[in-house]
Amino acid sequence: MIKYQPKDSSLSPRFSGIRTFMRLEHVRTEKDVDFVVLGVPFDTAASNRVGARYGPQHVRDASVLLRPYNPDQEINIFDYCSGVDYGDLDVVPGNIHRTYDQMTEGLAPLLEKGVVPIILGGDHSISLGNLRAFAKQYGPVAMVHFDSHGDTWDNYFGEKYMHGTPFRRAVEEGLIDTDHSIQVGMRGPLYGPGCIEDARELGFEVITMRESRNLGQKEVIQRIHDRVGPDRPVFVTFDIDFVDPAYAPGTGTPEVAGPTSFEALEYVRSLDGLNMKGFDLVEVLPAYDTGDITAGLSAAVAYEMITLVALQKRRNEQ
Amino acid sequence: MIKYQPKDSSLSPRFSGIRTFMRLEHVRTEKDVDFVVLGVPFDTAASNRVGARYGPQHVRDASVLLRPYNPDQEINIFDYCSGVDYGDLDVVPGNIHRTYDQMTEGLAPLLEKGVVPIILGGDHSISLGNLRAFAKQYGPVAMVHFDSHGDTWDNYFGEKYMHGTPFRRAVEEGLIDTDHSIQVGMRGPLYGPGCIEDARELGFEVITMRESRNLGQKEVIQRIHDRVGPDRPVFVTFDIDFVDPAYAPGTGTPEVAGPTSFEALEYVRSLDGLNMKGFDLVEVLPAYDTGDITAGLSAAVAYEMITLVALQKRRNEQ
Amino acid sequence: MIKYQPKDSSLSPRFSGIRTFMRLEHVRTEKDVDFVVLGVPFDTAASNRVGARYGPQHVRDASVLLRPYNPDQEINIFDYCSGVDYGDLDVVPGNIHRTYDQMTEGLAPLLEKGVVPIILGGDHSISLGNLRAFAKQYGPVAMVHFDSHGDTWDNYFGEKYMHGTPFRRAVEEGLIDTDHSIQVGMRGPLYGPGCIEDARELGFEVITMRESRNLGQKEVIQRIHDRVGPDRPVFVTFDIDFVDPAYAPGTGTPEVAGPTSFEALEYVRSLDGLNMKGFDLVEVLPAYDTGDITAGLSAAVAYEMITLVALQKRRNEQ
Amino acid sequence: MIKYQPKDSSLSPRFSGIRTFMRLEHVRTEKDVDFVVLGVPFDTAASNRVGARYGPQHVRDASVLLRPYNPDQEINIFDYCSGVDYGDLDVVPGNIHRTYDQMTEGLAPLLEKGVVPIILGGDHSISLGNLRAFAKQYGPVAMVHFDSHGDTWDNYFGEKYMHGTPFRRAVEEGLIDTDHSIQVGMRGPLYGPGCIEDARELGFEVITMRESRNLGQKEVIQRIHDRVGPDRPVFVTFDIDFVDPAYAPGTGTPEVAGPTSFEALEYVRSLDGLNMKGFDLVEVLPAYDTGDITAGLSAAVAYEMITLVALQKRRNEQ
Amino acid sequence: MIKYQPKDSSLSPRFSGIRTFMRLEHVRTEKDVDFVVLGVPFDTAASNRVGARYGPQHVRDASVLLRPYNPDQEINIFDYCSGVDYGDLDVVPGNIHRTYDQMTEGLAPLLEKGVVPIILGGDHSISLGNLRAFAKQYGPVAMVHFDSHGDTWDNYFGEKYMHGTPFRRAVEEGLIDTDHSIQVGMRGPLYGPGCIEDARELGFEVITMRESRNLGQKEVIQRIHDRVGPDRPVFVTFDIDFVDPAYAPGTGTPEVAGPTSFEALEYVRSLDGLNMKGFDLVEVLPAYDTGDITAGLSAAVAYEMITLVALQKRRNEQ
Amino acid sequence: MIKYQPKDSSLSPRFSGIRTFMRLEHVRTEKDVDFVVLGVPFDTAASNRVGARYGPQHVRDASVLLRPYNPDQEINIFDYCSGVDYGDLDVVPGNIHRTYDQMTEGLAPLLEKGVVPIILGGDHSISLGNLRAFAKQYGPVAMVHFDSHGDTWDNYFGEKYMHGTPFRRAVEEGLIDTDHSIQVGMRGPLYGPGCIEDARELGFEVITMRESRNLGQKEVIQRIHDRVGPDRPVFVTFDIDFVDPAYAPGTGTPEVAGPTSFEALEYVRSLDGLNMKGFDLVEVLPAYDTGDITAGLSAAVAYEMITLVALQKRRNEQ
Repeated sequence: MIKYQPKDSSLSPRFSGIRTFMRLEHVRTEKDVDFVVLGVPFDTAASNRVGARYGPQHVRDASVLLRPYNPDQEINIFDYCSGVDYGDLDVVPGNIHRTYDQMTEGLAPLLEKGVVPIILGGDHSISLGNLRAFAKQYGPVAMVHFDSHGDTWDNYFGEKYMHGTPFRRAVEEGLIDTDHSIQVGMRGPLYGPGCIEDARELGFEVITMRESRNLGQKEVIQRIHDRVGPDRPVFVTFDIDFVDPAYAPGTGTPEVAGPTSFEALEYVRSLDGLNMKGFDLVEVLPAYDTGDITAGLSAAVAYEMITLVALQKRRNEQ
Repeated sequence: MIKYQPKDSSLSPRFSGIRTFMRLEHVRTEKDVDFVVLGVPFDTAASNRVGARYGPQHVRDASVLLRPYNPDQEINIFDYCSGVDYGDLDVVPGNIHRTYDQMTEGLAPLLEKGVVPIILGGDHSISLGNLRAFAKQYGPVAMVHFDSHGDTWDNYFGEKYMHGTPFRRAVEEGLIDTDHSIQVGMRGPLYGPGCIEDARELGFEVITMRESRNLGQKEVIQRIHDRVGPDRPVFVTFDIDFVDPAYAPGTGTPEVAGPTSFEALEYVRSLDGLNMKGFDLVEVLPAYDTGDITAGLSAAVAYEMITLVALQKRRNEQ
Repeated sequence: MIKYQPKDSSLSPRFSGIRTFMRLEHVRTEKDVDFVVLGVPFDTAASNRVGARYGPQHVRDASVLLRPYNPDQEINIFDYCSGVDYGDLDVVPGNIHRTYDQMTEGLAPLLEKGVVPIILGGDHSISLGNLRAFAKQYGPVAMVHFDSHGDTWDNYFGEKYMHGTPFRRAVEEGLIDTDHSIQVGMRGPLYGPGCIEDARELGFEVITMRESRNLGQKEVIQRIHDRVGPDRPVFVTFDIDFVDPAYAPGTGTPEVAGPTSFEALEYVRSLDGLNMKGFDLVEVLPAYDTGDITAGLSAAVAYEMITLVALQKRRNEQ
Repeated sequence: MIKYQPKDSSLSPRFSGIRTFMRLEHVRTEKDVDFVVLGVPFDTAASNRVGARYGPQHVRDASVLLRPYNPDQEINIFDYCSGVDYGDLDVVPGNIHRTYDQMTEGLAPLLEKGVVPIILGGDHSISLGNLRAFAKQYGPVAMVHFDSHGDTWDNYFGEKYMHGTPFRRAVEEGLIDTDHSIQVGMRGPLYGPGCIEDARELGFEVITMRESRNLGQKEVIQRIHDRVGPDRPVFVTFDIDFVDPAYAPGTGTPEVAGPTSFEALEYVRSLDGLNMKGFDLVEVLPAYDTGDITAGLSAAVAYEMITLVALQKRRNEQ
Repeated sequence: MIKYQPKDSSLSPRFSGIRTFMRLEHVRTEKDVDFVVLGVPFDTAASNRVGARYGPQHVRDASVLLRPYNPDQEINIFDYCSGVDYGDLDVVPGNIHRTYDQMTEGLAPLLEKGVVPIILGGDHSISLGNLRAFAKQYGPVAMVHFDSHGDTWDNYFGEKYMHGTPFRRAVEEGLIDTDHSIQVGMRGPLYGPGCIEDARELGFEVITMRESRNLGQKEVIQRIHDRVGPDRPVFVTFDIDFVDPAYAPGTGTPEVAGPTSFEALEYVRSLDGLNMKGFDLVEVLPAYDTGDITAGLSAAVAYEMITLVALQKRRNEQ
Repeated sequence: MIKYQPKDSSLSPRFSGIRTFMRLEHVRTEKDVDFVVLGVPFDTAASNRVGARYGPQHVRDASVLLRPYNPDQEINIFDYCSGVDYGDLDVVPGNIHRTYDQMTEGLAPLLEKGVVPIILGGDHSISLGNLRAFAKQYGPVAMVHFDSHGDTWDNYFGEKYMHGTPFRRAVEEGLIDTDHSIQVGMRGPLYGPGCIEDARELGFEVITMRESRNLGQKEVIQRIHDRVGPDRPVFVTFDIDFVDPAYAPGTGTPEVAGPTSFEALEYVRSLDGLNMKGFDLVEVLPAYDTGDITAGLSAAVAYEMITLVALQKRRNEQ
């Protein structure tokens, strides 16, 4: 029995009512749920434009248009999954360490029950909090990382914890199984070639945007699967600036010359077959989201993430 | 004991979490509540710009900044009142009659318990649904109407039910005690002098914007109190286009040369002493609300409405 | 002799003067014209964002930049065609049936004279009105339908006539020759697999967005021609949400991961050779059209439609 | 018999159809008309933000909401007046002298017939073209000038003809009866005290914004009437930046701390009793007009100008 | 001899060139200058909308329209003053304490030379850094504070240093001479009456917005002068949310029902006669500044601040 | 020794400080520099939307995110090059001839020293001024022209000098070596086939957008190299409307169906190997640049231009 499903849109129009993700019930429960959507509205750690604290609500706003059947993956999510909008974890604006502590504490009960969280940021610094929680439950996780930036700086004005450093910190803390982790989409001017080399030295496979164009999307997808394998617990982190600014203007450090929305969704869909434990989707900034197209795309990305949970569940049931 | 209060903003930042009005709990209850905020996202009946269906959410978005203590009225609302965000009533886009039926049915349980609803539109056609529900409970109500338009047309292209006609219909249906009702703020070009004369013939006292400037706000307030009196059950309807477009651009039929935000709030505050039974606040259109200033003002208007409920409660308790 | 042509842009700048489509004369005539552009600003029947009533003017605003020679099709439109801006058909906001009646009545004199109308919506519900008019003149028409949604729902909250149902209604009314009709571009989450299956059961060939990516545009074009054939009277309906929101943010129910503007124009151009009787272009919503890029694209689509009329005329003259 | 009136809004909604001013017929006639609205989309002569070439259309867009009865002046315009939208005069972008020539030529047939033109700019440089035409017909005219800038510079980078110099040029050319002319509203930082003194030396009475606040609006109005007198032919020029940017953000050189929309309309209304020969309304820039509130105010200003024509006509008929 | 003046706008248009404040030279000098404009783009400490880090550039962008002669104060600033754009002080995003240290260090050389800084924020937390620098030079300063919020909270989620607490911290650190300090403009919902009482208990005189309306602006100005006196060193802090959101939408925590732009400028002008030592202007957020009107007003406020320096200098020279 | 480099972003955040291009020093020097970035904010000569005078600052605003290492070309620019932001050349708004004179005079000292200028427009008319300066120094130059329009009209309303005519004028004046010049990207409706034929008759090779799609980007790049050759002095002119409006909405005469941002950058990168003497980048209009994506793309284009200078320098040094 699927307990939690979206509100019935044959009774009330999709534009009506309190805005939860996909019109799911807003219940803070770990019981009878396969996935939850939750927000972490923390954005104190951004180096350029700020405002990702409003990201979760912005994605929720657009998500009310989502419907349960995914024709590209040929599955009705709620035939297999129960899910809720868990609300937002409490954050402490301006204090990243207290926020991290609240995050790991807040995610623990979900992960202990095997619930898959889809976490809406917030800036990319939140991934460190997420990874701490996942590693505590699963040990070092394989990570699939879509982004235009590698976010493996050492520090920023001497600050060790901000949105350009989470993955170096995570490696240092032993949270990531780098041998089975991969970054895709890096591009744009850098402070030096080291920015990408460093990620490789940390152990990541890195496929830059340019390399992905040369390889072709199919080959990149194959490499992701080769790298990660079907069994290791996987955490997916998706920075919306992975996509070209024409498709996602509402972000903090946009980089031109990225993939299209079609390609972006294909990447997420292609992850089917991995052993998904959790996702985050970060760096959505409503104040720059002209026409709300970034919100629409972000909701679609989160929807494909949820679909992966449903596909996994269907496979496991068979 | 006050059961329902806003979420504690010392635990989670006001910008976080699911967006309910003023961070109140979203519970569809008539028990242990003195007021509810609810939306009626119906906008099929507008003659010009459309999009008020997104009004309730837009006002909720801005309302999260509201805090419990009203320094202008010197009262902490939740010392006296319990309130919830009731969500939105179900509407049928494109079918005004079925929507009206769902509204009167939806409001009845609240009114039967004496709960004061603050109703967020939607276009002004929803006031007819509201008035039907109120008149059923209280008999014909005294109405205080702030607006730049009288909305007493007979029809629009032969259509009897749309956002320019609700108050003529309401009078015809005997829902309004016109002898104790008043309209304030009318202005802008008309099809003829009849547009205002008609309202007077229907029995309303009408104070145009220009007359209000000549009388002064204090005198207008006195006339409202003289007209309505302290005991009759009162319904207040506030069209956000009452205010000048500089302060409220996000509306469907803006009329230049209206009051300021300060004057608008003073009008609502000044209603203290009347026997308040309910309120609506209509015609907020997010798509035109540059800088979200209309949302902020609308939330402030609704806040002053709620304060009136608290003041009334305090008076009754003394 | 070509009677009606655009205003001479060597005498007055294109940005000046009353805004008609492509600076054509605004005359309500069926004489001496091969095509007319006309608006149907009806948007009462939308399920999500509203405001397509402002679509026709918005497309006209952008269309003043259009020039007579189409280099991709190598033809000067006005060497072969005479055309005017017919203005807007009268609509009754909030009353779809009276609007349909006014549409069929309004289109009849044009169709009787063999004039090809390019009809600017309005929401997609207007296509039912259009199809009634065309079927009355030509019998059931072959339809080529570009859209991200099939619009073949049975009803919406029990309402049979709205922007998600026109093509089911049209089939029921016998207005479409479904055996020779085709839908292209469907994508996005659904209520169930039936949403697409139903269209196929109604008789349409359906090529989803994903299928079109796999087939390649050339093959899709071939299938359109195979399906429709060169002789049957054809009606083309183009929902601007066919295109990706990055290219067309100004629409009511945007779906991510659609075709580019280049592909969209190629589809329209490729229809040359069919027996064109009329077109509509719907769901343009100015309030969300950041940077007016949707208007520009819509004007270009309409321009390619007009070019098809000119090519047809040239072929017939030869 | 009043020949030309707005389109009947009981037959087609105000938002539909080709956008002419106030839904008047677009006819280029001098016969059977008392007033015409016409555009001069010239903006090559601006010193800061540019784009007033799109001003006329923008004001037309908002003007479709205007209705014939003016309740503040208690008159139905079309009981006394016939009027059309004359379209735009041809301009030569980048060439101010050829544009001036086309303007004086274009206005002559109207002025010869005694038709009162309401001229929509364009930047303020167009007033020199207007004044040439008026002076040719009426001799030097009394001018009432509402603006935050005096526009009496001698030159701009050596250029004698641009939007900061028209009234000095006009005085030099003998087009203005400065002894009976007045400027109201000047404010904002200057290059020196001379900027205002110079206007006084040219013969204008100047009432700065600050002076107008000290005098009170009634006294300012009295001074305008005292200065101009009831009989002299009057030209009114209204730069939309006269109004505070909160009410009129869509302009080229906004100056903070100006009058409200209510005050601005009162100024225009108060001109009743003067011998009106023509008006212009300039410096409306759509690209900065957030929420389209500048367009709405501009349309209201033009509407009050037309009302003055009607009031004058009624007086003359009595 | 006045060494540093704005770029000569008779040689290059005001819209051209690198954007410094008022087109002043960008030199980091303390010599031969009477005032400097400098930015502190720190915004990590905001409780609601973020983005004030872009405030300094936004104000600079609008400031290029400013001209040297102030007609309201009848003075040409650069007849008496030399000034430069000092650029921005270095800040450490996310680290308020290191930023404070850099601020006090950065301001010291200016204050030691008696240069008056006009400091552009950033969020209001920067005022604590400013006050530390001023108190070090001048001892506890008298403070004139225009704002809709008192910013005297004790903490925010336990964080002692953020944009709602600077003035409590400053009092605790002995930086302010509260007996001669005053806050004007407080309004909007609070957590309790204490929010204002606390400021009074800290020693400030507080005039709420409502009180200021009742007293009248003249009386409020008198009270400021009475409170501060002509001799004590004064620091003025101006939060742009002091002004109504219709005039200043581009801010982080807008409060409706504030003063107009005219009133706001009058307040600053009225400070002439006090012993000015420095100013800050904070909470300008470009991402919400529709039509750039907040930037224009902010530049005008800073301009009036600079004028006060010039007036003081002229008085001292006489 | 590289003298001039960008400000050190490890000392101050990239969002802080005066906005120069890429945070380079603003020095007007021809010594010790390999390239300069400079603006020519002239836009009097545009046929449609205006406002390119604000283009240079808009591109500077976005450029502060650029970093020195270009991973696609594998070079750190400032290992090989020294560069400054030269500011803007003085222009005379409204007077194209005086502006041209100031441009050729202003560019001469740079070209005499062999400095490569990256010139930010302004509208496309400025290219004639640029070409005059380059031809004076180098003789007729080979030109690579990316644009959606050929800009080889003869005149516009009789005006010979405006943004649609610069390249015809340049050919007439003998400034271009047309045999080795090429135009890429032309598309959109024309006044007749001559618009493109004329360019070919003037001697240019022209590859339309459609042809480029058929040839493939690699082949187009080959043709550019074949046409130009490695030795001839080359001037590159890049009109931002070359790119599709989805990627670059902020321009004056957008044409749908253009290349993506990725393709656009690839074209610039592919020019490596030519003998680069200078660049311009024109027609950026901030007022239409929703989400500032055009600014970001433009900064990236300029960055690739600068990289070409560095690559050339490295090659020459080896």
